[in-house]
Amino acid sequence: MSARRSDQPARRIARLGTETAFAVSAEANDWKAEGHAVYPFHLGDMDLPTPANVVEATTRAIHDGKTGYCPNVGIPELREALAADVGASHALDLGPQNVAIQPGGKPVIGKFILALMDPGDEVLYPNPGYPIYESQIQFHGGTALPYGYAEGGESFELDLESLEDRVTSRTRLLIYNDLQNPTGAESSPAELERVADFALAHDPFVLCDEAYFDIRYSGKSRSLASLPGMAERCLILYTFSKKFAMTGWRLGAAVGPRRIIEVIGKLNVNDESCSNHFVQYGALEGLTGDQSGPREILRVLEERRDVAAGLLNEVPGISCLRPEATFYLYPNVTELMKRKGFTGYDELRRAALEQTGVSFCTRLHFGRAHPNEKEAYVRFAYSGISTDLIREGLGRLKEWAQ
Amino acid sequence: MSARRSDQPARRIARLGTETAFAVSAEANDWKAEGHAVYPFHLGDMDLPTPANVVEATTRAIHDGKTGYCPNVGIPELREALAADVGASHALDLGPQNVAIQPGGKPVIGKFILALMDPGDEVLYPNPGYPIYESQIQFHGGTALPYGYAEGGESFELDLESLEDRVTSRTRLLIYNDLQNPTGAESSPAELERVADFALAHDPFVLCDEAYFDIRYSGKSRSLASLPGMAERCLILYTFSKKFAMTGWRLGAAVGPRRIIEVIGKLNVNDESCSNHFVQYGALEGLTGDQSGPREILRVLEERRDVAAGLLNEVPGISCLRPEATFYLYPNVTELMKRKGFTGYDELRRAALEQTGVSFCTRLHFGRAHPNEKEAYVRFAYSGISTDLIREGLGRLKEWAQ
Repeated sequence: MSARRSDQPARRIARLGTETAFAVSAEANDWKAEGHAVYPFHLGDMDLPTPANVVEATTRAIHDGKTGYCPNVGIPELREALAADVGASHALDLGPQNVAIQPGGKPVIGKFILALMDPGDEVLYPNPGYPIYESQIQFHGGTALPYGYAEGGESFELDLESLEDRVTSRTRLLIYNDLQNPTGAESSPAELERVADFALAHDPFVLCDEAYFDIRYSGKSRSLASLPGMAERCLILYTFSKKFAMTGWRLGAAVGPRRIIEVIGKLNVNDESCSNHFVQYGALEGLTGDQSGPREILRVLEERRDVAAGLLNEVPGISCLRPEATFYLYPNVTELMKRKGFTGYDELRRAALEQTGVSFCTRLHFGRAHPNEKEAYVRFAYSGISTDLIREGLGRLKEWAQ
Repeated sequence: MSARRSDQPARRIARLGTETAFAVSAEANDWKAEGHAVYPFHLGDMDLPTPANVVEATTRAIHDGKTGYCPNVGIPELREALAADVGASHALDLGPQNVAIQPGGKPVIGKFILALMDPGDEVLYPNPGYPIYESQIQFHGGTALPYGYAEGGESFELDLESLEDRVTSRTRLLIYNDLQNPTGAESSPAELERVADFALAHDPFVLCDEAYFDIRYSGKSRSLASLPGMAERCLILYTFSKKFAMTGWRLGAAVGPRRIIEVIGKLNVNDESCSNHFVQYGALEGLTGDQSGPREILRVLEERRDVAAGLLNEVPGISCLRPEATFYLYPNVTELMKRKGFTGYDELRRAALEQTGVSFCTRLHFGRAHPNEKEAYVRFAYSGISTDLIREGLGRLKEWAQ
């Protein structure tokens, strides 16, 4: 008997998306392997070392035998410390019961959807935005409805009109990523209030993806969850990945109302038992120990941002905002495309790679373009490239564009 | 406006099960905290150290900067080494394309179901068995149909009749856990062939949960996937947890046909990006380096098994098989219950804890009893208790039963 029927994937697999940015990485690596210089602005990864005190606390925990299972929602000390940390930055009264440790920030996306969305429910999500939102919504049988961002004078702004346009009585969830990937957008206090008003009026539960909350160079991050009436309807996605340069360590957390955290904990039992035990002691040291590591990470990133934003604005046909947060720039390349006669994003991207070595993601790696979208954007990440290489690569890009 | 509707869990959450064994742990810990001696036979965790060469390779990898993201399906070296290892033990021709590294063995269960089961499909699963199978099947909209195990002369035997009774045209998947938790059951060559014949006749795709494949004290483990025609319809759950005493490290793998591994890899992208990067170098050393660590783990476990099985058989009213694999014993306590006048499992378990300190899980922690089930069983795990404490605890149990 043939195995044909048996090994056919479930129907839901046809609705599963991916991060197409990985294909950009693969192309850049192939190009490099052929002997060409490559300037990697496509990476969301970081090339900075994890702080030494985090490494030391982790190796100590291994040698102390923290190698067996730990509680499904994480070690109590870390839940306590993270509740204190997020409580302080968000002006919220949080305890360990509000924290479920996860093997990364990303698992919070899928678990949020599994915990709160029924098939047929509608979910509002940002586009351009992290592509996993749309993928997980559709995979689990929801209807994914995008809202947009538009370039303002000083930063990208959430298109509240597109939110209002798409909300219906079937809207169950809102995914909100402030500080935003890929645009670097950050809601102003007024915009935050309007989003909170929207949530209070239409009653969606909200995922606050705050993966970049602590990656900022001046001022102070604000959270939607801090606004009146919002804490009880927000689940915060927290990650150790960016602040402590721990992307490959895989540690994050869901932070929110106890009832939802309990459901997330039950999903932990079912999905992966618990997160790595000893890594949690490293994260605990990160939160409570010497802070010179995260400060140094921010210092390096800020220098890169200044150099990259400055040079991008020198490239003819490119204009680039300079956000105070995230490690992304989202320059407008509409004029560059015209000058070069490119009609599609992939043409631009491939030509830049092959003629200058500069590798980046485009708007299309963060969702399908909206029907009325007129301006063209690409994303430059500066988390995985040194200041010297930023100078060299963007110098070449400038020559090429002239 | 009230948040009542908004924070109500999705309907599927009502179908989500858990591991009720955690409640046994909690009760035992409470009892201990009150100052009583507790003999922890309830744990599925291990109290043995991870081999030193695995620890050393891991800390070296951290210091070598293996702290950024790695490929979604794991580092190529580990996929290669695991394909060679499983290929050799299973007499299969496997390559890295057949391996998707996971943050533990457990994630393979949920991903297997998401990848291959549509809502409404029927899935056959072992009962008594690991409770997460039934939970994940029902959570994702399938119909969970249990098959049983019966006590034979030398070991527990899979009740093939119950398999045949429950298979229908809607049967899509078979979950098969050989070597089995909680019974320690191991299919004989004849039983393996009959299971393979069943699969070839009825065409389900099979999850071979082989978490305990390398935990054996004599002889050699066999896999259903090694039988003719089976490799193409089996996904193997592999874990580093038991062989290398790495339970809290969270590392495992799905091993199987390339087509399914590609789907699992796409689920990795969506669910957690990748598994911890540097831990994979520790696992690589475990597979390819000095093997005295796993040998010592087996030596200790075998000694514990011999002592525990011997002493359990001295307890009046208990009879206990002595499996060559897993670190579980599944004694028949029917007579003991009668002697003591217990009518329910929880009565037995609580009385034993409070009157002897001996803590264990019962049959009901591994699924609901079958309608015609007459014999009573409990599970003793010897992975988290020293030989001395095994002697002391089972000595008390013997006195108590007399």
